[in-house]
Amino acid sequence: MYINNPATFTDYYELTMAQGYFLSGKHQKEATFDYFFRKIPFNGGYAIFAGVQELIETIRHFSFSDDEIGYLRNEGFTDEFLDYLATFKFSGDIDSAREGEIIFPGEPVLRVRGNLLETQLIETLLLNILNFQTLIATKASRIKVAAGEDSVVLDFGLRRAQGLAGIHATRAAMIGGFDGTSNVYSAQRFDVPAGGTMAHSWVQAFGDELEAFRAYAKHYPDDTTLLVDTYDTLGSGLPNTLIVAKELEERGHRLKAIRLDSGDLAYFSRQARRMLDEAGLEYVKIAASNQLDERVITSLKTQEAPIDIYGVGTRLVTGHPNPALDGVYKLSSVDSKPKLKISENIEKITLPGFKKIYRYFNEDGTFYGDAVLLDNEKLIERMHHPTFPAKKSDLIDRKYEELLISLLKDGEPVHETLTVKEIAAYSKKRLKLLQREFKRLDNPHIYKVGISTKLMETRDILLKLHKD
Amino acid sequence: MYINNPATFTDYYELTMAQGYFLSGKHQKEATFDYFFRKIPFNGGYAIFAGVQELIETIRHFSFSDDEIGYLRNEGFTDEFLDYLATFKFSGDIDSAREGEIIFPGEPVLRVRGNLLETQLIETLLLNILNFQTLIATKASRIKVAAGEDSVVLDFGLRRAQGLAGIHATRAAMIGGFDGTSNVYSAQRFDVPAGGTMAHSWVQAFGDELEAFRAYAKHYPDDTTLLVDTYDTLGSGLPNTLIVAKELEERGHRLKAIRLDSGDLAYFSRQARRMLDEAGLEYVKIAASNQLDERVITSLKTQEAPIDIYGVGTRLVTGHPNPALDGVYKLSSVDSKPKLKISENIEKITLPGFKKIYRYFNEDGTFYGDAVLLDNEKLIERMHHPTFPAKKSDLIDRKYEELLISLLKDGEPVHETLTVKEIAAYSKKRLKLLQREFKRLDNPHIYKVGISTKLMETRDILLKLHKD
Repeated sequence: MYINNPATFTDYYELTMAQGYFLSGKHQKEATFDYFFRKIPFNGGYAIFAGVQELIETIRHFSFSDDEIGYLRNEGFTDEFLDYLATFKFSGDIDSAREGEIIFPGEPVLRVRGNLLETQLIETLLLNILNFQTLIATKASRIKVAAGEDSVVLDFGLRRAQGLAGIHATRAAMIGGFDGTSNVYSAQRFDVPAGGTMAHSWVQAFGDELEAFRAYAKHYPDDTTLLVDTYDTLGSGLPNTLIVAKELEERGHRLKAIRLDSGDLAYFSRQARRMLDEAGLEYVKIAASNQLDERVITSLKTQEAPIDIYGVGTRLVTGHPNPALDGVYKLSSVDSKPKLKISENIEKITLPGFKKIYRYFNEDGTFYGDAVLLDNEKLIERMHHPTFPAKKSDLIDRKYEELLISLLKDGEPVHETLTVKEIAAYSKKRLKLLQREFKRLDNPHIYKVGISTKLMETRDILLKLHKD
Repeated sequence: MYINNPATFTDYYELTMAQGYFLSGKHQKEATFDYFFRKIPFNGGYAIFAGVQELIETIRHFSFSDDEIGYLRNEGFTDEFLDYLATFKFSGDIDSAREGEIIFPGEPVLRVRGNLLETQLIETLLLNILNFQTLIATKASRIKVAAGEDSVVLDFGLRRAQGLAGIHATRAAMIGGFDGTSNVYSAQRFDVPAGGTMAHSWVQAFGDELEAFRAYAKHYPDDTTLLVDTYDTLGSGLPNTLIVAKELEERGHRLKAIRLDSGDLAYFSRQARRMLDEAGLEYVKIAASNQLDERVITSLKTQEAPIDIYGVGTRLVTGHPNPALDGVYKLSSVDSKPKLKISENIEKITLPGFKKIYRYFNEDGTFYGDAVLLDNEKLIERMHHPTFPAKKSDLIDRKYEELLISLLKDGEPVHETLTVKEIAAYSKKRLKLLQREFKRLDNPHIYKVGISTKLMETRDILLKLHKD
């Protein structure tokens, strides 16, 4: 469960609006909302959808405790409304792209249908969960892509995470392709691999570095990674490593790795590799950490730095340098009537109506593009660029699949619960279907997301209606 | 309480090191650690220390549950060590600058003394709590300073917060000077003011905008803020506002405010102010939101935009564009012997020994500068720049106060618990003692943080020892 009191983990206006709908007698009207984001973070070419299963679980348990009702009474909410809230339960439907799916801007990857009050009330919670986990899964995917399948990437971010965000940063990082974490809490909770060995303080706590290395190797003969930069990486860290590695060999064990945490990682990793190899320690891996991200890792790879394991902290778990995904939750219909928001900014104009997404494929099985359609549409022959309709794509005879699946029906879950490992495996499989041009760190190919002719017409009629 | 299982909310290596100390028989050695940060975020001139009280409360309840012990057993930790953990309790001392204090880089604003095992084990938790809340309190302070004392600044960030980070982002924002929040959960938990009115979906849910405005004003006649940009700010939002405001007046009420959430806020606020004033609605306030931060607000103030209330979301709660404070926790002594970490990066060399901080004052009562001393030092006559010792400041006859106070003694709290409002009031009082040149958004005056001659000598002897 995401948080013990999900119902008040919300913006105050969700509650004033809920009460307003209730007192106006409008709360039972059927409404639909869309979740979508507008801009891919990090100037990337795709995003990894994450947080979905936690959202579903949390909405199932969405209710108001006596304590919360009491708080709202003090705030001036009416008894009549609070009686309603006291037995409130979300009874609507949620259809969504699968967690781990590769998603793109402007498409409603999750849609909610229910009464106006309940669909409104879950807004903040939904945005809070999906925006952050999608952000971090996307960042993690970029880092894994930069490091390559042969390298190991580990989440070291808990100490620099935004407080409790560290819990779900780790979950999302695993979905995005990370191999493990230092975060014990999340490893236990989400059943993912955890690990770690020593900090500089371990080395400092002993009389000298060699004594510290020996003490660690004594207790963890098969799982020792020596941190070599506490005093002098090449002058003492590596020479002491060679001694301890040889002593381990004599005892029938193998030193696992060394870790570099400061200085020029390309230079030091190359020197370290040479020293290890010359001593016959080709099997000892090199791990590196210190302000890594997909760009630094790409630079290290370009320099052919012999690093096997990357520990990535701050910039992974905070989504540096774009610490928020701009996902929104917009009303798309009331009483089956499509609704539109216009706003003073063109890019904030929404797509009206109850919609679905078709994903089209190329002949080789890779993703071609996505179309947003009205839910009652069947086959469509073409899709239009959402803001520049003269630009269109022919879809005749293309294979496609529907992207949204039913997760919650009348408030009850209708889909199996997956482990984080299973979600990560699905995401990995789907990412393989995205052509490499979309995975470039900079100026990636732009994935086609279009809208159906009927949806375009529906929007344009509503626009005209409001503007006349 | 910060989290239910604080003991495993940690990096794995804290536990492997703890077991290593335990099995080496070193765990009872006395150790001291310092918490400090290296760089002020946002290129600012000061930081606001936050999270301290939550850290103290959480460490008091730091223990391992059966479930966690079971998990660690599966991970291969030894029975002997797990028996020790099963009854583990933090029994050390924590001295700290007060929560809400104005703090600066390179000074140990919190120090921990206890046995080597316990002082190591709390590292990740401590960093996670202090780094994030200090970051957000600092960001909030910058925004409040930019908006000015006469403006109201409200936290609207929950939907874009990094998941559960939203809980403590609000707490920290209030400490940094915010006036209220949209976050119901945190408002209830930390006893701070919450509020909010309507989203665009409210306006869309009704037949037209006027009907939507009227319905809201009917139910909240004394607390209505109308969101005016759903369709056309000046063409419909404002004209409908004037109608509803007049209707409220006829019923003996007053419209509270309008809110602008898109478009050019300077332009629209000026037009809105004019239209409201011409209708005799001088008392209706103007609120603005949409990607605000201290820089946008400064620009709006420079343009004399008549905005009374700023709703700040994403950029406040994520600490955009610096989403992490680089606070660290470094071993400073073992068995009363000062310890040093050298590293390959000069700026990562630590200050050894058990230390304290004196804050010196100017004659007018404002802050002059801070000196870091060894704990057994008394009066000092000068302090040195930490990395450029030729630069020094004379301290003779200056008034000073000791910055660290005792919060935890032998694991027990020795200081009263404060409300968030009290902490915020303290912070506000202290910020007044910081000269305005340090509060500039860009290129602020650099606050003096020096080290005593004795501390400098201690460090230099240790450096020489390790390098020879």
